[in-house]
Amino acid sequence: MRTPEEYSSDLKKMKPNIYVGGEKVNRDDSRIKPGINVMSVTFDLAQDPAWDGLITATSSLTDKQINRFTYLPQNPYDLMQKQKMIRLLAQRVGGCIQRCMGYDALIALSVATKEIDEKYDTEYNQRFIKYLEHYQERDLTAAGAQTDMKGDRTKRPSEQLDPDAYVHVVDVRDDGIIVRGAKISITMAACADEIIVLPTRALTEQDRDYAVAFAIPADWDRVHLVTRPVWLRERKSIKAPFCEYGVSDSMVIFDNVFIPKEKVFMCGEWDFGRRLALLFANSHRHSYSGCKPAVSDILCGATALVAEANNIERIAHVREKLSAFAGGAELSYAAGIASALYGSKTSSGTFFPNPIYVNVGRRLMGETIYHEFNMLAEVAGGLSVTLPFEEEFISEETRAYMDKYIVRNPKFSPEDSHLIWRLVENLVASPVSAWYQIAGVHGGGSPIMETITLSAEYDYESKKSIAKYLAGITSALDQSADLDLNPSM
Amino acid sequence: MRTPEEYSSDLKKMKPNIYVGGEKVNRDDSRIKPGINVMSVTFDLAQDPAWDGLITATSSLTDKQINRFTYLPQNPYDLMQKQKMIRLLAQRVGGCIQRCMGYDALIALSVATKEIDEKYDTEYNQRFIKYLEHYQERDLTAAGAQTDMKGDRTKRPSEQLDPDAYVHVVDVRDDGIIVRGAKISITMAACADEIIVLPTRALTEQDRDYAVAFAIPADWDRVHLVTRPVWLRERKSIKAPFCEYGVSDSMVIFDNVFIPKEKVFMCGEWDFGRRLALLFANSHRHSYSGCKPAVSDILCGATALVAEANNIERIAHVREKLSAFAGGAELSYAAGIASALYGSKTSSGTFFPNPIYVNVGRRLMGETIYHEFNMLAEVAGGLSVTLPFEEEFISEETRAYMDKYIVRNPKFSPEDSHLIWRLVENLVASPVSAWYQIAGVHGGGSPIMETITLSAEYDYESKKSIAKYLAGITSALDQSADLDLNPSM
Amino acid sequence: MRTPEEYSSDLKKMKPNIYVGGEKVNRDDSRIKPGINVMSVTFDLAQDPAWDGLITATSSLTDKQINRFTYLPQNPYDLMQKQKMIRLLAQRVGGCIQRCMGYDALIALSVATKEIDEKYDTEYNQRFIKYLEHYQERDLTAAGAQTDMKGDRTKRPSEQLDPDAYVHVVDVRDDGIIVRGAKISITMAACADEIIVLPTRALTEQDRDYAVAFAIPADWDRVHLVTRPVWLRERKSIKAPFCEYGVSDSMVIFDNVFIPKEKVFMCGEWDFGRRLALLFANSHRHSYSGCKPAVSDILCGATALVAEANNIERIAHVREKLSAFAGGAELSYAAGIASALYGSKTSSGTFFPNPIYVNVGRRLMGETIYHEFNMLAEVAGGLSVTLPFEEEFISEETRAYMDKYIVRNPKFSPEDSHLIWRLVENLVASPVSAWYQIAGVHGGGSPIMETITLSAEYDYESKKSIAKYLAGITSALDQSADLDLNPSM
Amino acid sequence: MRTPEEYSSDLKKMKPNIYVGGEKVNRDDSRIKPGINVMSVTFDLAQDPAWDGLITATSSLTDKQINRFTYLPQNPYDLMQKQKMIRLLAQRVGGCIQRCMGYDALIALSVATKEIDEKYDTEYNQRFIKYLEHYQERDLTAAGAQTDMKGDRTKRPSEQLDPDAYVHVVDVRDDGIIVRGAKISITMAACADEIIVLPTRALTEQDRDYAVAFAIPADWDRVHLVTRPVWLRERKSIKAPFCEYGVSDSMVIFDNVFIPKEKVFMCGEWDFGRRLALLFANSHRHSYSGCKPAVSDILCGATALVAEANNIERIAHVREKLSAFAGGAELSYAAGIASALYGSKTSSGTFFPNPIYVNVGRRLMGETIYHEFNMLAEVAGGLSVTLPFEEEFISEETRAYMDKYIVRNPKFSPEDSHLIWRLVENLVASPVSAWYQIAGVHGGGSPIMETITLSAEYDYESKKSIAKYLAGITSALDQSADLDLNPSM
Repeated sequence: MRTPEEYSSDLKKMKPNIYVGGEKVNRDDSRIKPGINVMSVTFDLAQDPAWDGLITATSSLTDKQINRFTYLPQNPYDLMQKQKMIRLLAQRVGGCIQRCMGYDALIALSVATKEIDEKYDTEYNQRFIKYLEHYQERDLTAAGAQTDMKGDRTKRPSEQLDPDAYVHVVDVRDDGIIVRGAKISITMAACADEIIVLPTRALTEQDRDYAVAFAIPADWDRVHLVTRPVWLRERKSIKAPFCEYGVSDSMVIFDNVFIPKEKVFMCGEWDFGRRLALLFANSHRHSYSGCKPAVSDILCGATALVAEANNIERIAHVREKLSAFAGGAELSYAAGIASALYGSKTSSGTFFPNPIYVNVGRRLMGETIYHEFNMLAEVAGGLSVTLPFEEEFISEETRAYMDKYIVRNPKFSPEDSHLIWRLVENLVASPVSAWYQIAGVHGGGSPIMETITLSAEYDYESKKSIAKYLAGITSALDQSADLDLNPSM
Repeated sequence: MRTPEEYSSDLKKMKPNIYVGGEKVNRDDSRIKPGINVMSVTFDLAQDPAWDGLITATSSLTDKQINRFTYLPQNPYDLMQKQKMIRLLAQRVGGCIQRCMGYDALIALSVATKEIDEKYDTEYNQRFIKYLEHYQERDLTAAGAQTDMKGDRTKRPSEQLDPDAYVHVVDVRDDGIIVRGAKISITMAACADEIIVLPTRALTEQDRDYAVAFAIPADWDRVHLVTRPVWLRERKSIKAPFCEYGVSDSMVIFDNVFIPKEKVFMCGEWDFGRRLALLFANSHRHSYSGCKPAVSDILCGATALVAEANNIERIAHVREKLSAFAGGAELSYAAGIASALYGSKTSSGTFFPNPIYVNVGRRLMGETIYHEFNMLAEVAGGLSVTLPFEEEFISEETRAYMDKYIVRNPKFSPEDSHLIWRLVENLVASPVSAWYQIAGVHGGGSPIMETITLSAEYDYESKKSIAKYLAGITSALDQSADLDLNPSM
Repeated sequence: MRTPEEYSSDLKKMKPNIYVGGEKVNRDDSRIKPGINVMSVTFDLAQDPAWDGLITATSSLTDKQINRFTYLPQNPYDLMQKQKMIRLLAQRVGGCIQRCMGYDALIALSVATKEIDEKYDTEYNQRFIKYLEHYQERDLTAAGAQTDMKGDRTKRPSEQLDPDAYVHVVDVRDDGIIVRGAKISITMAACADEIIVLPTRALTEQDRDYAVAFAIPADWDRVHLVTRPVWLRERKSIKAPFCEYGVSDSMVIFDNVFIPKEKVFMCGEWDFGRRLALLFANSHRHSYSGCKPAVSDILCGATALVAEANNIERIAHVREKLSAFAGGAELSYAAGIASALYGSKTSSGTFFPNPIYVNVGRRLMGETIYHEFNMLAEVAGGLSVTLPFEEEFISEETRAYMDKYIVRNPKFSPEDSHLIWRLVENLVASPVSAWYQIAGVHGGGSPIMETITLSAEYDYESKKSIAKYLAGITSALDQSADLDLNPSM
Repeated sequence: MRTPEEYSSDLKKMKPNIYVGGEKVNRDDSRIKPGINVMSVTFDLAQDPAWDGLITATSSLTDKQINRFTYLPQNPYDLMQKQKMIRLLAQRVGGCIQRCMGYDALIALSVATKEIDEKYDTEYNQRFIKYLEHYQERDLTAAGAQTDMKGDRTKRPSEQLDPDAYVHVVDVRDDGIIVRGAKISITMAACADEIIVLPTRALTEQDRDYAVAFAIPADWDRVHLVTRPVWLRERKSIKAPFCEYGVSDSMVIFDNVFIPKEKVFMCGEWDFGRRLALLFANSHRHSYSGCKPAVSDILCGATALVAEANNIERIAHVREKLSAFAGGAELSYAAGIASALYGSKTSSGTFFPNPIYVNVGRRLMGETIYHEFNMLAEVAGGLSVTLPFEEEFISEETRAYMDKYIVRNPKFSPEDSHLIWRLVENLVASPVSAWYQIAGVHGGGSPIMETITLSAEYDYESKKSIAKYLAGITSALDQSADLDLNPSM
């Protein structure tokens, strides 16, 4: 397993293909750094014996100790450990731990390549396993690149005015394929060793060229990352872990890129488009059952802390708001646990979470994230967005005023009061706020996407059978015997 | 295990002490019958091999096969089986299966009697175990009677103007105790063999006389059940399982009742008042993680069915509403699963569900039950409450009109259309509707009670530690090492 | 103006054509009576000088003093008086005052007949005015019958398998027309002198036969009312105004009914189908800005009262719930006021409320009605549905127990405590509860209908212009001058 | 009336007492400029004949034409014009028009000074009128400074550890008073000519020194503005009105400031503390009935526009979201209209809005603001926060990619598509987003404050009377005659 230093040193060696603010930058640019700091935690703690067995695992391929972010879950316990690891790491970095994107892409490919092979007698799974061994060995990180630019949303890929609205195969050669298009909103692509590309939706036969999955190094030839980092106003004097961490998203442009055959994991099998897209989405929604509770934990903790700073911790509406965070966090965490327990073994050997539970859990948090910010802002008060800049707390002319007035609950010193308000400001009134709000809605699929998944996957017919039985509709009476014993009835 | 016939025959033998509508009635009164029908299902299916191991279990006391409603859970799997059994039975009877009330009282007493003994060197647990062996052997049913009349809510039991506002001990004799007071809203007391009394709240030393728990036969001397049954308008011609089932609640009056010593399980140990009250509440909230999803299942199925009858099943807002039922049902079911997995072994050997998860799950459903009825009513339309009486569908003068106009989606016959609308009417516009709405809010404790429990039990301090760590509050930095690995962080 | 006695005496003279519970009944049937009691209040108070100018008005046709329920609004103040009258009367009868249905049908016809005449040179308005003079003179009441049985909701009237799914013209004769079909969920038809029929939706040229509006006496030949009354469990001893009032809905069947020419107000003008349907709907939604606040007032008052009876009136969550009632009631009342102020004079002279405001106001209450019941039930507690029957409070055997235990707040006597709980039970756990819940959702159009109306009528384009202007989209820059000064921007 | 140029030239002449980012800056600092641009619109349009009578008015003091932001409302129409003006101006500047803060302080003082004089025979009103004549003549702007630092929220001003937690009088001299303390979150103080100080809460006799109100120039001696401006990332090439506007908030520090007698409008009359605080709050909540609908209008327009850019404008859930904006905007606008119509003439002659309606309207928007951002973000998609920086759309290396991929709906050019997404980003993922979210919750008082006001002011007793009457509680029967005819029953 790599150390954090090896990881960032590897990044530094990569070819610059990242564009930020009109410049081409290296992977040690200060605006990319906060994201690298997040990823580093996953390397750092893997060295820490306290986290042994949680952030590390024994490879099902090689029996070696590996980072869990490169490990294929084999049973419910593995999924629960994944969920737990993500919640704990997300608490540590103040939010998105980022590395699960590539992890979920690996999980999805492990299942789908096997299933495609079973139908078409292809050799994708073998290629993939070889790739994964290399990935585990090198302790790599990857961005999972799924969302296409999409163009006109009412049209399928093959119907678009611009055929590049979705990434697609433009040429097939003996040694590989040529692809073109762009993936957007690809979190952590700028901090990743690799990029793994997956289809984003169900496809028809006409969309055959859009049925493509592959992996490549993130600095591969003719791949361009147009990157938008999010970072906090830099602290001048008062330091805080929260400020060390950040994130960036990239538009990943494939401008006639050659993908060598051994890195191609799907090519033309349009009937598996929906399957692979959903495998990734559902695995990623399972990851959210770890990170979303952590986001609630952080907002809950900040709310409780600022309530204490305002000395209103015992007021009824504050207690109620705090318990709403608890409700949100634990219901979605419970959904993750249920998805593990009622998950299933796929033909590939990978153990996959129950899709119903990952969707109801992810949706809940997607629906409530803005409300969670609302609750923190309501308890904190207007000061959360009108807090004078840090410089005012340093400057000779204003410092005494700041120290005097920042204290509300005298049990906190001026410095601690300032640290609390600064954290609250960072949480609710910084570029990071909008990122967490919108990622909370859209990351892994917005509530509307989970509703669509549920409309397709939830067994409404069995519910109707119950109603028919109770209504006395005769033809249903015999069905009563079959009232399904499946727990997700 | 008793047959349904043995059960109702036993009831018939009981002394009449039930008052309904100004009359003293026997336990074969037609208004009590629908509740007995519900209970009978728990006896009936226990005879059915298909339900073996689900509705039956091997006694931890005697190794005999017993009905699961009399069995003390020993491990997470037992809790999951309890939850599953309740969901399936509740689907079968169209809602509350009722027998879990007494079951949860048994579970609570199994734990509390042991803990009291450990502190006070009493012999309650031994008495209780003896009682339970008899209970299992006889395959009994019991009402758990917890909620007192309460009087002035701002005062503790011992501060009330009327000391009988809470059930209390008025005399202690060598062979037993005398109690007085009334318990209200006691579901199924009129169909139960036994009544098990538990304290309803935290107590102080002054409330010592109110710290009392015991069991007695439901027709015991000087015990009066003032009962309010809920039943549906009787069907004249079209029969439906839903109409066979119903429920009743009783005010259970103890008018200087003698309780023999061997049936007294707490007497004066005021410091265990809160513990026993919460053990029952939390065990019962665990039961709700089975029955509440079933109520959602039924409402969901009826909504889907009436949407089909209206031929609007594919309309976006209908799909969204259906998926909201799915979300509610599965999130609360998942909370039950998580509570089992993160439950704990008590000193008594009983395995007890995690209190956080049972509370977040129960609260969710308590908050959404009215909205679920709203959704069904919205999809069904005004006809759900303006549907002409069944007699109009029979009478010569009007029948042809009814048959002609009741059909909306021609794929349903007039009779099936009528059955569907009649079920919907029974669900949303009958005495049963209000019962399910209000039981949905209050049964097992209203949302406000779960919020209070969470305020007391959820670890907000650990959340604050996360916030302090991220804020950079130095004293918390060392705490970072301790960021709790407990999954319900 | 008629007295209540004249009104019910007139009803008694009518031909029996009402079917309830398999019987044909007269208009003095005890199950119809509660609805008649409601209507009587509108006659009674019109005799009371205190209500002069509110429940009475000076006819714009004849300058005579008439009941406001027969008066065409001429200006904003008239609309405000209508709204105020309805709120006050609804408080008096505990909910729906019922007489506005026919009133809104008159208002809609006054406008539409004029507009049809203007386009087609017909003489509907003249016929209508003549009818209205008679109606005012006789101080009549009418049911507005709009909602058809509808059949398959995905098909237009002319596409239905059964052409009678919507009321339609089957023959046109010199002296009138023959109509067939059924209207459902027609509130108060059983207590009305007249029935006024209007189309229920937009129509195409193929639906020409469905473009029909007319008025007839409610006991007209070949008209059958299949009626479902809602009434409360009769009180034995404790009387309360709330129990005197009730409601019924009818399926109104037209079995080849002859309508004389002078009572036909639309016949074949399909292009006015949508207009007339919406005029009625919007006028009726304006009426809801009076009655819906009253329903909130009643539920609010009952919640405050039962909170006092529970002695929890000062608890934070109770205060918050009470203020939620205030918010709902006053926002929808305010919407009515705004609709009056921004209403418009139609070509007929009738002053018509602004459609945007009536729709946002009505929708708000339709969305929150179940939640309002939820709040009352939550504050009241489980006793609201488990309250023993009144007979238990009378019977010698149980009366002392009831009197003892029903008191929670000692400031209320047993009798007043009982009256409070009985009212609460009547409100949340009686047949009336479901009626108010479902009428609250669907009466005058469900929230989904108001959303559809808003989608069609609200000026989203002007909002887009604002966004384009702020975005700097050049073509919009000149539009900046036009940023609409219309107050409902 | 001043021109925009005169206004900013006046500002430039002021003494620098503003601190931003560790520096003392002048009132032409680029970070303050966006706020000045907002204020300038109120001067600019007052010169435009199209806005005559809306943004201008005839002074009730001098009969001169003045800017409406300096005018005392005399009747309901004036309040409606105020509301309309604010909505239209807020649409124009993309949100908060800012100048109403001082305006509402003037309105509040006009009423309170009169009432204090009436009780204490003081001469505050005369002083105030003189000040107002000067204010109207000079066409001034003022920040209303109400919110104190507050210290420990569980303690009254006189109980605080630091007596300066609330602004208070430290010395009374013949020619004036000396005050100390700090007001926070004072919007637009850095762009104002004047600062008007008001008390923030109810006071007791012990808090006498905290009962103080006065006005002074914003650059007055020993007054320091520690200012936090909010501004957008500056545009390099694509310009948009939205980017020209911004806001700043100041902590306004009074370090032993001398206030000349003639500018003191309250000094020691603690029993008017609550009254004056509420007069300002309620007048300001009335202003929100203009600006909050405008914020909804802007978010609604942006949502509709980006839906069009995504070509999903006709999708059901989008239509529903759009109509939710309409509902929020028009309900709160209607509340403003009702508050005008049911307002009252105060003894000072100023016409004051009805407090119930301003509170229900303001609260609605405070409760929904985060949800409105949620809806826009949900419809826009993740791109709203991952949009590459503007520089990437300019740079030679990336421009072609950006232009190619930014277009989704081909009816928009790349430039217009970019402008739309940039506006959306500015709205949901910029410093301005958090400002509007949190100001939406807290500006003018958070929902909890409106609930508290309603708890004190709404007539719950009259609602209880209705319930008592309907319940049949005899003592209430006679009250039935009094069922209040007040429209806000």
